[in-house]
Amino acid sequence: MLKGRDIVSISDLSIEEIERIFEVARKMVPVARGEMKNENLRGHILANLFFEPSTRTRLSFETAMLRLGGSILDFSNPSATSIAKGETLADTVRMVDSYSDVIVIRHPYEGAARLAAEFAENPVINAGDGAGQHPTQTLLDMFTMVEEVGRINGLNIALIGDLKYGRTAHSLAIALDRMGAKIHLVSPPTLTMPTHILRRMNQKPAVHEKLEDIVDLADVFYVTRIQKERFPDPTEYIRVAGSYKITGKVVEKMKDSAIIMHPLPRVDEISPEVDNMPQARYFKQAFYGIPIRMALLSLVLGVE
Amino acid sequence: MLKGRDIVSISDLSIEEIERIFEVARKMVPVARGEMKNENLRGHILANLFFEPSTRTRLSFETAMLRLGGSILDFSNPSATSIAKGETLADTVRMVDSYSDVIVIRHPYEGAARLAAEFAENPVINAGDGAGQHPTQTLLDMFTMVEEVGRINGLNIALIGDLKYGRTAHSLAIALDRMGAKIHLVSPPTLTMPTHILRRMNQKPAVHEKLEDIVDLADVFYVTRIQKERFPDPTEYIRVAGSYKITGKVVEKMKDSAIIMHPLPRVDEISPEVDNMPQARYFKQAFYGIPIRMALLSLVLGVE
Amino acid sequence: MLKGRDIVSISDLSIEEIERIFEVARKMVPVARGEMKNENLRGHILANLFFEPSTRTRLSFETAMLRLGGSILDFSNPSATSIAKGETLADTVRMVDSYSDVIVIRHPYEGAARLAAEFAENPVINAGDGAGQHPTQTLLDMFTMVEEVGRINGLNIALIGDLKYGRTAHSLAIALDRMGAKIHLVSPPTLTMPTHILRRMNQKPAVHEKLEDIVDLADVFYVTRIQKERFPDPTEYIRVAGSYKITGKVVEKMKDSAIIMHPLPRVDEISPEVDNMPQARYFKQAFYGIPIRMALLSLVLGVE
Repeated sequence: MLKGRDIVSISDLSIEEIERIFEVARKMVPVARGEMKNENLRGHILANLFFEPSTRTRLSFETAMLRLGGSILDFSNPSATSIAKGETLADTVRMVDSYSDVIVIRHPYEGAARLAAEFAENPVINAGDGAGQHPTQTLLDMFTMVEEVGRINGLNIALIGDLKYGRTAHSLAIALDRMGAKIHLVSPPTLTMPTHILRRMNQKPAVHEKLEDIVDLADVFYVTRIQKERFPDPTEYIRVAGSYKITGKVVEKMKDSAIIMHPLPRVDEISPEVDNMPQARYFKQAFYGIPIRMALLSLVLGVE
Repeated sequence: MLKGRDIVSISDLSIEEIERIFEVARKMVPVARGEMKNENLRGHILANLFFEPSTRTRLSFETAMLRLGGSILDFSNPSATSIAKGETLADTVRMVDSYSDVIVIRHPYEGAARLAAEFAENPVINAGDGAGQHPTQTLLDMFTMVEEVGRINGLNIALIGDLKYGRTAHSLAIALDRMGAKIHLVSPPTLTMPTHILRRMNQKPAVHEKLEDIVDLADVFYVTRIQKERFPDPTEYIRVAGSYKITGKVVEKMKDSAIIMHPLPRVDEISPEVDNMPQARYFKQAFYGIPIRMALLSLVLGVE
Repeated sequence: MLKGRDIVSISDLSIEEIERIFEVARKMVPVARGEMKNENLRGHILANLFFEPSTRTRLSFETAMLRLGGSILDFSNPSATSIAKGETLADTVRMVDSYSDVIVIRHPYEGAARLAAEFAENPVINAGDGAGQHPTQTLLDMFTMVEEVGRINGLNIALIGDLKYGRTAHSLAIALDRMGAKIHLVSPPTLTMPTHILRRMNQKPAVHEKLEDIVDLADVFYVTRIQKERFPDPTEYIRVAGSYKITGKVVEKMKDSAIIMHPLPRVDEISPEVDNMPQARYFKQAFYGIPIRMALLSLVLGVE
């Protein structure tokens, strides 16, 4: 049902389509682990068109393609390229489109992925466009909850940290709300979720200032980074960031069945001692990015 | 007939060999489009040895190799390498030669590709060496004319823009003249074709200063970029560049059967409104770079 | 016997294991040359995790993997990545580990490869960590001697040049001594082999200041680069470096059966006229890096 489709925004996908992606991703897990072979995408070329660096995302698409026998065309250093000569995005996309079967685009400006999709004949997958969307991140986050907790509907999900500037939290809040989750927003008063995001949610989320408020309630703790640059005063930053830090002591107050997620890379938000506690799922979450992208590539290329 | 051969200059190829390359390229078109599979080059390694960036050329060789099941070794950032430690070109070529089956070299200095070919045992393909040759560009340009107009012999072909510094126009003029085309040179007086190129042509080309002179006559309009840096006075640049610009109005005066080509990337030389007019073939021309390079790689590796 | 093993230091390998690696490498030679096909590693992914550039090493691992039908994930520009955001080595390794089947790591700090091996579930191969080890270089150097001279035990092997700072010479001296070679150290007085390396050798090596002392005695001349930066006075550098230079005249004094090696890239240490003399084996030595790495990858991935 997704053959030939562009994946620009998570909102472009129906709940039925999201569930289909998860179903295919589930079958891809042993292939992603290298335990089972699958060469469905052999002979197909994925072009990585990255106008800003994002190694983690780029490599996870590469791994997904390689695990299915496909090939990669790497267009990830635009400063040294035609762009520097003044070529338009449309012309660059047309070139890359005629060299490949599917384009994965990352761009600093919101709307760039949608524009690329208009000029490319082949499917375009948005790997993040500025303050806009990053739909494969949202899909892998939701897939992690489904696989590790069992469902999304009815869960108490805490989004923690910088909810103002963090793109990840915005799309995720809207998508989880649509899937029937109860959202809890936990952030400093200066970094709360913007109104234009809140307005797009069906259920009004609960708002908390302290992690303690929901520590024994939440099923999912989705931690995001608070950037130092957001605070004029470094002492203030240390105080605020520290109050949202997930330490071993915080984890001990959580439910046994709760899970901790993080889009990674993390810096100080989660202490290393948490890594070996049963609630830690952020490395597994990162791994789930592979089967999700394998599923998506298979489906848009019509070879699932 | 081309097995094991170095492709350094278009002049190294006989007309018979060029026609053989076109014949193979024609069969490669559906494979290049991803519509048909062909794994002739599986197990073969192409080394991209790029001493200056040229994303479009590098990626089109990569696509050509990948579409035939081959692999890529990317040596395209020499500043961060042995070169920086003072290694000679000969030693670098010997290393890359022992790691791969065919070398594609791009170098800022004329003659570098010939030198590389001397030190490598495997075939070397020149992907542009300074003011020197770029034979695969010339081949794809000629292939575009043959496929899109039907022949080269007897055509009126206008080379437009910077004919003084533009390497592309130099090799192309000589090659097209040899294939029996009638060449028209259209450039500002300060950017005319150098005498050493004219001397190598059998037929004296017609020289024009204005695009209007040949707008209803030419079968092929080959447009090249006029670089701002060539003009001491920016106002003069705008006036001159503007007078060679291909707009919708200019295209309306062309023959219906005429085609417009450009080596890309374009900046301002062709208006976007031309993109959807039937004469526009520059994106198709860029695509033809893939089957031409597939044909060349197959032939020099002897697995066609 | 090496399945699943990390290869961090040459000292981790028993003599029996080294001989097994050589045996497999010997069978890989025609595959490395592209004369025979072998797709043993098809479906496997090697991640190149290079925290500092080393094109020669990176490309030789890539070639080794590609020649066996495997794929490459290139993580070789860490400045533009998660590292820049403050991610720890452990977290980066965990990510790359979940994306691939084997990690090749290059790092400026000694001990980094050992640390990576602790955090990765898949095998880790050290491709050089600061002043530490570079075991695949040591293996290919020894393999060259075995293939080109016939044995290591009992050979007179001269290590020439900068023996103080040159990491290559350190590991090699210890490994060759263990294999029963007689080591001769030839260096300027300011660049002699450090005591902590000498202490780890069973047999006391002979120490020479002049190349002449051993020119008609040595079976192997292992030449390393003397870096200009080591000398406060440029004139002194020229005088010293010149006195260790291998010229045609020097080679004429060598035994016919002697071989000349160099880890490459070379600058001035060996004159170009030596390249075609029968003793020159440095290009062959560079080539042997491919079958050695093919053997190692096959063995640690358990698919030999």
